[in-house]
Amino acid sequence: MSVKVAVAGASGYAGGELLRLLSAHPDVEVGALTAGGNAGTALGQHHPHLVPLAGRTLVETTAENLAGHDVVFLALPHGQSAGIAEQLGEDVTVIDCGADFRLTEAEVWTEFYGGEHAGSWPYGLPELPGQREKLRGTNRVAVPGCYPTVSTLALLPAVQNGLVDPGQLVVVAVSGTSGAGKAPKPHLLGAEVMGSATAYGVGGVHRHTPEIEQNLTPYADQPVSVSFTPVLVPMSRGILATCSAPIADGTDLAVLRKAYEDAYRNEPFVQVLPEGQWPQTQATLGANTVQLQLALDQRTGRAVIVAAMDNLTKGTAGGAVQCMNLATGLDETLALPLIGVAP
Amino acid sequence: MSVKVAVAGASGYAGGELLRLLSAHPDVEVGALTAGGNAGTALGQHHPHLVPLAGRTLVETTAENLAGHDVVFLALPHGQSAGIAEQLGEDVTVIDCGADFRLTEAEVWTEFYGGEHAGSWPYGLPELPGQREKLRGTNRVAVPGCYPTVSTLALLPAVQNGLVDPGQLVVVAVSGTSGAGKAPKPHLLGAEVMGSATAYGVGGVHRHTPEIEQNLTPYADQPVSVSFTPVLVPMSRGILATCSAPIADGTDLAVLRKAYEDAYRNEPFVQVLPEGQWPQTQATLGANTVQLQLALDQRTGRAVIVAAMDNLTKGTAGGAVQCMNLATGLDETLALPLIGVAP
Amino acid sequence: MSVKVAVAGASGYAGGELLRLLSAHPDVEVGALTAGGNAGTALGQHHPHLVPLAGRTLVETTAENLAGHDVVFLALPHGQSAGIAEQLGEDVTVIDCGADFRLTEAEVWTEFYGGEHAGSWPYGLPELPGQREKLRGTNRVAVPGCYPTVSTLALLPAVQNGLVDPGQLVVVAVSGTSGAGKAPKPHLLGAEVMGSATAYGVGGVHRHTPEIEQNLTPYADQPVSVSFTPVLVPMSRGILATCSAPIADGTDLAVLRKAYEDAYRNEPFVQVLPEGQWPQTQATLGANTVQLQLALDQRTGRAVIVAAMDNLTKGTAGGAVQCMNLATGLDETLALPLIGVAP
Amino acid sequence: MSVKVAVAGASGYAGGELLRLLSAHPDVEVGALTAGGNAGTALGQHHPHLVPLAGRTLVETTAENLAGHDVVFLALPHGQSAGIAEQLGEDVTVIDCGADFRLTEAEVWTEFYGGEHAGSWPYGLPELPGQREKLRGTNRVAVPGCYPTVSTLALLPAVQNGLVDPGQLVVVAVSGTSGAGKAPKPHLLGAEVMGSATAYGVGGVHRHTPEIEQNLTPYADQPVSVSFTPVLVPMSRGILATCSAPIADGTDLAVLRKAYEDAYRNEPFVQVLPEGQWPQTQATLGANTVQLQLALDQRTGRAVIVAAMDNLTKGTAGGAVQCMNLATGLDETLALPLIGVAP
Repeated sequence: MSVKVAVAGASGYAGGELLRLLSAHPDVEVGALTAGGNAGTALGQHHPHLVPLAGRTLVETTAENLAGHDVVFLALPHGQSAGIAEQLGEDVTVIDCGADFRLTEAEVWTEFYGGEHAGSWPYGLPELPGQREKLRGTNRVAVPGCYPTVSTLALLPAVQNGLVDPGQLVVVAVSGTSGAGKAPKPHLLGAEVMGSATAYGVGGVHRHTPEIEQNLTPYADQPVSVSFTPVLVPMSRGILATCSAPIADGTDLAVLRKAYEDAYRNEPFVQVLPEGQWPQTQATLGANTVQLQLALDQRTGRAVIVAAMDNLTKGTAGGAVQCMNLATGLDETLALPLIGVAP
Repeated sequence: MSVKVAVAGASGYAGGELLRLLSAHPDVEVGALTAGGNAGTALGQHHPHLVPLAGRTLVETTAENLAGHDVVFLALPHGQSAGIAEQLGEDVTVIDCGADFRLTEAEVWTEFYGGEHAGSWPYGLPELPGQREKLRGTNRVAVPGCYPTVSTLALLPAVQNGLVDPGQLVVVAVSGTSGAGKAPKPHLLGAEVMGSATAYGVGGVHRHTPEIEQNLTPYADQPVSVSFTPVLVPMSRGILATCSAPIADGTDLAVLRKAYEDAYRNEPFVQVLPEGQWPQTQATLGANTVQLQLALDQRTGRAVIVAAMDNLTKGTAGGAVQCMNLATGLDETLALPLIGVAP
Repeated sequence: MSVKVAVAGASGYAGGELLRLLSAHPDVEVGALTAGGNAGTALGQHHPHLVPLAGRTLVETTAENLAGHDVVFLALPHGQSAGIAEQLGEDVTVIDCGADFRLTEAEVWTEFYGGEHAGSWPYGLPELPGQREKLRGTNRVAVPGCYPTVSTLALLPAVQNGLVDPGQLVVVAVSGTSGAGKAPKPHLLGAEVMGSATAYGVGGVHRHTPEIEQNLTPYADQPVSVSFTPVLVPMSRGILATCSAPIADGTDLAVLRKAYEDAYRNEPFVQVLPEGQWPQTQATLGANTVQLQLALDQRTGRAVIVAAMDNLTKGTAGGAVQCMNLATGLDETLALPLIGVAP
Repeated sequence: MSVKVAVAGASGYAGGELLRLLSAHPDVEVGALTAGGNAGTALGQHHPHLVPLAGRTLVETTAENLAGHDVVFLALPHGQSAGIAEQLGEDVTVIDCGADFRLTEAEVWTEFYGGEHAGSWPYGLPELPGQREKLRGTNRVAVPGCYPTVSTLALLPAVQNGLVDPGQLVVVAVSGTSGAGKAPKPHLLGAEVMGSATAYGVGGVHRHTPEIEQNLTPYADQPVSVSFTPVLVPMSRGILATCSAPIADGTDLAVLRKAYEDAYRNEPFVQVLPEGQWPQTQATLGANTVQLQLALDQRTGRAVIVAAMDNLTKGTAGGAVQCMNLATGLDETLALPLIGVAP
């Protein structure tokens, strides 16, 4: 079997990571590669690491150029997916790495993204209970945001088992700067980001906040509230999320740990690390993995869960390929590295 | 007037930063420089940036070598200050950059550091209400830890004015790796830390946790509890602390902001940034400054305060020199840069 | 077919990279993992990125523990390979990532490494003319040093075709710090290497100098002389070598370029980039590739060739696996990524 | 005495560094701060580290706004200085950090920069023999480029004393990315530059090449030829230049070393390091210093000189302030740090 795949937005970081993974996929044939302003140029100019595809020419992102493929990945700026998607038929599997179809509530969408809500698609986080089944055979997938992927996986077992107060969740997540994309802006210059850490989107205004809450709400016995602060640090890739919440009565470390081990025992890409070993983003570089560790702070009565993930792999393109595998009936783990590139 | 100063532990990072600042001090004469294993070597081997002092030879850290100075800075591993300090007379001003004399409660000391409590000295954070006066003319100063300095300054106005619940404080602080010192350990190797973020001391076990609580407790109307998680990120210097707490009834952003502006209006080294501008550690590199910004998250009812600081300058050696200025009757701001080195 | 493989020195950087590649090899079964001081600990403590092998226990590096494997990789400190190798029978394929068997001249060995010369083994650089055939079926391979691999490939076509003066070669190669290994030393601490560049082994004293000269000499019509200076820069991985030499009479850019394109047209892992595109190490991260570009400086009459490579992949472990593939009769390119992890 | 100073181009990196230094200058009053597109905004938005000046508003770069100052620093894009300078009277001291007036040969200017040659001004490298006197009291200074400053100082004593062949000079200089300026370009994004090294301007086409040759030519007994290759590495600041040349007959290490020590014995900002200690850029961060070390490679007959410098301080703004001090009759070393910020 061979799945013919197109990538829209191939010159960006998400597009490049999709192509890195898809190039190693045994059942995929890479078809059209499209771009906006970079149409007409060679892929190798933008992604010199993609050696086997370097000579490919980028074409315009149009429905015509994307037609004739089994799967189309959309790695476009937020707000551009809906327009293209509606021109692609139901026989095409569309996997959107953008935010257009992630949120189910129209008013929340409008509050955080502005403009009109395009609707919602099956949410591409197979590790959510029951979600894997919904993704098998689907022809539309909304790939989660990077922060929501890691934050949800870090908090879900505690919330789902009623071990913490879901109304007082606090997430501070440090991130490499590739998450901010490839459009050049002064504050993303190397000279600015090296040697510096800075917070942004503070105070609940980051667009990933409602997505985390949406993910956890079905599993919580009380309203979910997440205080989310992202912090840019001098790395190209990687997210380390420090998540905490007040523990519910009777929660102890053994109970908490068991909840996580039970939740992820059979998950191929989520690892609860051995006791005493704390996650480091380097161990997940280029891999489709999330590494977790947890502690219970007796002085404060808070559970603290720390999770590491590569924002471009499991956080975007790897998660998207995982969804493609499910959607097209392939083995879910195909072409998804378990081993990161370290040091 | 000229103050003759000795630095014990001159080959480490805190010692080097002390000497960088003291070399530019108009009223200081740099005397003995001592070390442990590095005694007998030239300072320039360890600190090639200290050009004017590079030819100086390090001598053994003994009371004899430290005698005859007006001020002795101790930049020694934790637990080594007490033994030396008791051999230095009351006519010598001793400023300890270590942890030996920071905590007032003996049992807390023993819980977090082990061994016997040596006592407590005037705490070297002049920005605490009333503390500046206690430091003027004192002959003993316990310089705060780096995380406690930035976390305390970030939380104090909110706690002191009853604007947040002091029992549910959460601090996640990213830090450059110089804070871990110069003793070579595998996890601090460049190849390990570049491209990686990792948490440590999670779950309230970091030694700076009780120090933050001790600092805030006198100003709180309820018991103070801090969930503190430090995160190592790929920078040499700098701490960015993201602090949050549930707001008290009636707290709004204007009230919160006013509390911070009032608290720090006359503080030379603490700046509340203009609205919309978030702190970045690079702006404080090598400076004795703390930069702050705040937000109020209406969805979660939490105040979020973000603060940037150089762990070696205001967080250690700059804070120590500020205390020396006060203790010896000099202008508090002498030789302390307001301007960081950026980009 | 399945090749049973042991890795001696599995807790170091070369060992970790070998295991990353071997884990994805379709024809390899990973057997014993040995270490020195780390024997008895779990591999995952040292290499948390090696998820599928994390629970494996490291055993002592002894001939007994290495017996019973088809292939043994030695990733040991220089000088330790010879002792182990002589205890392994001729039916075991031994691939040495250390320097013990690289140099053919005993007196040069002694000059640069000290001690007695252990002999020389087939040199594991298949891209040298005729060398690929010598490696097929061999039971002993000396894997090249990282700098010699990239420098030799960068200079060979020019030297071999008589296009430059081989007596005046100049190589300045910047390198990430993983090349210095995992033993903790103060100058390799993150706080020292971040934000800093420094040269070392200047003046022809670096041990890789004679190896580069040895590699080029058979193809030169005059004595070969290489001025080699390595520079540590703040990266975990990667080497960028800037190589230059005076051009011979009649050399122009077209001739020079053709020599490189001809030399590497059929080499799977060496790419001469399209004109105008200069190598960057990031594009080779974790890949077994070398990327090259060249210029001819008319003012100075020098050819300048720049080459990028990952020191741990093609420069060490990838090169070693490539040799194993040849030695054991497998497809040379198996399990060797062509695509780097970028950005 | 108080010198009233304006800075044109204050929102860029050179402008920011000028203001960092000038703010600590005892005899300077900072006047107008001008900008192009950033006119009308607060300086603190662009340079949050410049705390005491953060509230200043940038005004348009016009002759009117620059009038009425004793000294005007021009930190403008290449090609923009000449137009402004001719509108400033002879009673204003103009110090140009751009390239407009550096080269003396009109045809070389046109070859490397394009357009018409504006002329040449006294060259702001006081360490050149006799140059210090030419700069005293001048009202026009062309501040050298960063690479020419460090390369010239690294090569001059060897060339001037006839110890090397000036026709075969090779310079490979690694640089932090602030040297490329603050205009956002994709290849300067943090995610691109972190973890990557890349060469540019290879083959003698970098504009600093003729400037280095121009500097050395008056002191050489033969035509000077420099093969110059710059390499971007993941640092914000700093240049490490590795310079080499074939030695002349009779040159030995003692002679070479003596030439450097003699040349720089009385230079306040140039240090020949003790034997065995190699320069690292970190030691010069934010300082106006150049640190040098040298070796003689007996195998190849080449002298190798390595030099470290901060591109923004001694390489641009510090050098400019040094020239201002000379031009205005102040102590040459005022407000110029000898001590870098490390680690």
